[in-house]
Amino acid sequence: MTIAQTARQARRASRQLAACPSERKNAALKAVRDALRTQSQAIIHANRADIEQAEQDNLSKPLLKRLKFDEDKISEACAGLDSLIALEDPVGKTLAATELDESLELYKVTCPIGVIGVIFESRPDALVQISSLCLKSGNAVLLKGGSEAARTNRVLAETITRAAAAAGLPDGWLGLLETRADVAAMLALDDDIDLIIPRGSNEFVRHIMDNTRIPVMGHADGICHVYVDAAADIPMAVKLTVDSKCQYVAVCNAAETLLVHQAVAADFLPKLKTELNAHGVDLRGCDKTRQIIDCAVADEHDWKTEYLDAVLSIRVVDSLEEAIEHINTYGSGHTDAIVTDDRNAAMQFMDQIDSADVFWNASTRFADGYRYGLGAEVGISTGKLHARGPVGMEGLLIYKWRLLGKGHIVADYTGAGDKPFTHNKLNKSYRM
Amino acid sequence: MTIAQTARQARRASRQLAACPSERKNAALKAVRDALRTQSQAIIHANRADIEQAEQDNLSKPLLKRLKFDEDKISEACAGLDSLIALEDPVGKTLAATELDESLELYKVTCPIGVIGVIFESRPDALVQISSLCLKSGNAVLLKGGSEAARTNRVLAETITRAAAAAGLPDGWLGLLETRADVAAMLALDDDIDLIIPRGSNEFVRHIMDNTRIPVMGHADGICHVYVDAAADIPMAVKLTVDSKCQYVAVCNAAETLLVHQAVAADFLPKLKTELNAHGVDLRGCDKTRQIIDCAVADEHDWKTEYLDAVLSIRVVDSLEEAIEHINTYGSGHTDAIVTDDRNAAMQFMDQIDSADVFWNASTRFADGYRYGLGAEVGISTGKLHARGPVGMEGLLIYKWRLLGKGHIVADYTGAGDKPFTHNKLNKSYRM
Repeated sequence: MTIAQTARQARRASRQLAACPSERKNAALKAVRDALRTQSQAIIHANRADIEQAEQDNLSKPLLKRLKFDEDKISEACAGLDSLIALEDPVGKTLAATELDESLELYKVTCPIGVIGVIFESRPDALVQISSLCLKSGNAVLLKGGSEAARTNRVLAETITRAAAAAGLPDGWLGLLETRADVAAMLALDDDIDLIIPRGSNEFVRHIMDNTRIPVMGHADGICHVYVDAAADIPMAVKLTVDSKCQYVAVCNAAETLLVHQAVAADFLPKLKTELNAHGVDLRGCDKTRQIIDCAVADEHDWKTEYLDAVLSIRVVDSLEEAIEHINTYGSGHTDAIVTDDRNAAMQFMDQIDSADVFWNASTRFADGYRYGLGAEVGISTGKLHARGPVGMEGLLIYKWRLLGKGHIVADYTGAGDKPFTHNKLNKSYRM
Repeated sequence: MTIAQTARQARRASRQLAACPSERKNAALKAVRDALRTQSQAIIHANRADIEQAEQDNLSKPLLKRLKFDEDKISEACAGLDSLIALEDPVGKTLAATELDESLELYKVTCPIGVIGVIFESRPDALVQISSLCLKSGNAVLLKGGSEAARTNRVLAETITRAAAAAGLPDGWLGLLETRADVAAMLALDDDIDLIIPRGSNEFVRHIMDNTRIPVMGHADGICHVYVDAAADIPMAVKLTVDSKCQYVAVCNAAETLLVHQAVAADFLPKLKTELNAHGVDLRGCDKTRQIIDCAVADEHDWKTEYLDAVLSIRVVDSLEEAIEHINTYGSGHTDAIVTDDRNAAMQFMDQIDSADVFWNASTRFADGYRYGLGAEVGISTGKLHARGPVGMEGLLIYKWRLLGKGHIVADYTGAGDKPFTHNKLNKSYRM
């Protein structure tokens, strides 16, 4: 089957899935969970073959670790499916209800987006997570995982597809893509795919955006800031900066630039330097920073750089306004935190910083779907439409306007002697 | 000033506008309303010059009518401003609140998108409507109106800008674009513009989409259907088809194709033909249709065509499923209606039709922001992300995640002896 045919089949399946009762979707999720257990030996066998190949190809230790899919991972995946089954069906929720006139009722009701294309990294557990999120939210999905995990992903996709079909799900709701050529083919199918979610490096996400007319929900850079205000509690500022920078340096919500109000710089920076030196962080500072602590030079280029490494750029600012201006100029709209005991300063920061996540006295590392309590995360969006920041299942939904009449025509509401609309808010959910 | 400078200034203004208190925004709207009244002679004078020019250029009667901006239109615009002032501020609304742990509270709070570029047709009242919607929702806006209305738009933009500035709004929140070259320049400014809303023909909207990396909220075709089911009330089906087709033929929510269940075709079609003939509608039918009534031939091409004229294509189908399949294949995801007394048929239609607006026993012409009670309409979206169908002020909003802590770090929630998250839903609004 060509990718175009796979996508067309997914489109057809998506229309049935959109109208699929909750019970059947949950039965399918249970069947998938059971199948993962009964097929565990075949899955682990395929995963061992992927790992052997990856070892021969000299993949890095962290990548090998992410690739591994063993009994523990299968149990985790099954636990994830159980929590998803327990969640309320997100489809069919009434967002607004209005009486336009007597017996003419308008309902704004959630529905699936349709067909989602997801390109994800090497972890095979992502395949289970994403496909089950799509199933629960009534979306068909085309999946492309890391090529290192090809054997594991193939067995997982087959296991999920077979179990879901036996539970009455339409054929083709899950399509597995295996090559880069498949991805290139997918990007051209704007008639049959409604949304692409690319997970991976910035360059990769940009490449996808530049090569498709399909809307893309992806994250650009994560140039996150910690701003230590004049009214900051200094020990707290040290603790939050260390956590934001060091807790996990290779992720998008790690801090890359520290801004320090000049009133506290002389007190704060030497204390911070001691801690960051102990964590092996390479510091780069502006002129004013270097008058207080010894470090390398930071320039304009640093303010625009997502290091994803044990490097921190530091700038001393004269005011809260200068900090806000810096962040709105050089930041990437991801996550920015202020450390202060001054409520007004915090308010101003949180109102004026134009980022998906704005924090007061908390580490930037909290910007994450799991920590936010969203359940599984489909991605982190730095866009400003549809969904912003960590995106959970809600990001896979849109709505339909459903109008129920008794033969109402517009001609009666226009021109001479026209009837008025009542536009009464209705306090009830859509039901037919 | 170049368009890039105008957009940069709008970006700066948008950040202040996002944090602007409701009182100041409403004061600015009142000042704009008052200024429209005091400047009415200058506005009408400019509009007369536009109309004279348009008459010399032989613009069509309907276009001339749309171009007119007189005392009545000014009064209407002022009334629109009054209703907008009366509306609650849509910014700063709490969409969700979660306690992540003790004293660590997460709020999902509405905020403006940022800078919106709107390209609209000749009606000068659209300039007042769109700019005031943007102001109320805290967005900066770049506006490009029809060139026929250039003089009127210039006076209106100056009047609005001056009044808003006097009321304390930041300079540059409203930028007026005047030429096609200005629009082309705007499309390249993806750093400073967050959303483009093009209003106009399909070709125009597609042209915009193909020439920018900025997200576009626009409508594609409006190929709307009326499906007359086996269980339809025949007089109602005639009435709804006539209204859907004839009430205003040149708009996107007018019906273009009629589908008729074969069980009622012989009874319904002759009655419909009599009515539509009286309205001067040109009929094109499939073979089965032509066995019942005399009309031209409809083929595959007709099913894909948005006539925007007094033409209706007709197809007889064997089943509800065939009607759904036809609509999902040839429709444009805009508005589709079923006429039936069978509740189950209606449910299946409304669940399985993948369109922004799905109607039961109501005319397709109801798909409209004003009729829906959304207040002014910024456009109609046939996309499936962010906003769908008629888009009111809500479509100009997104949200920020605001996290309030007391020095919380992620390291405490990971690894050995990690603290659990509480993830308690909070039943309160964001307040600092």
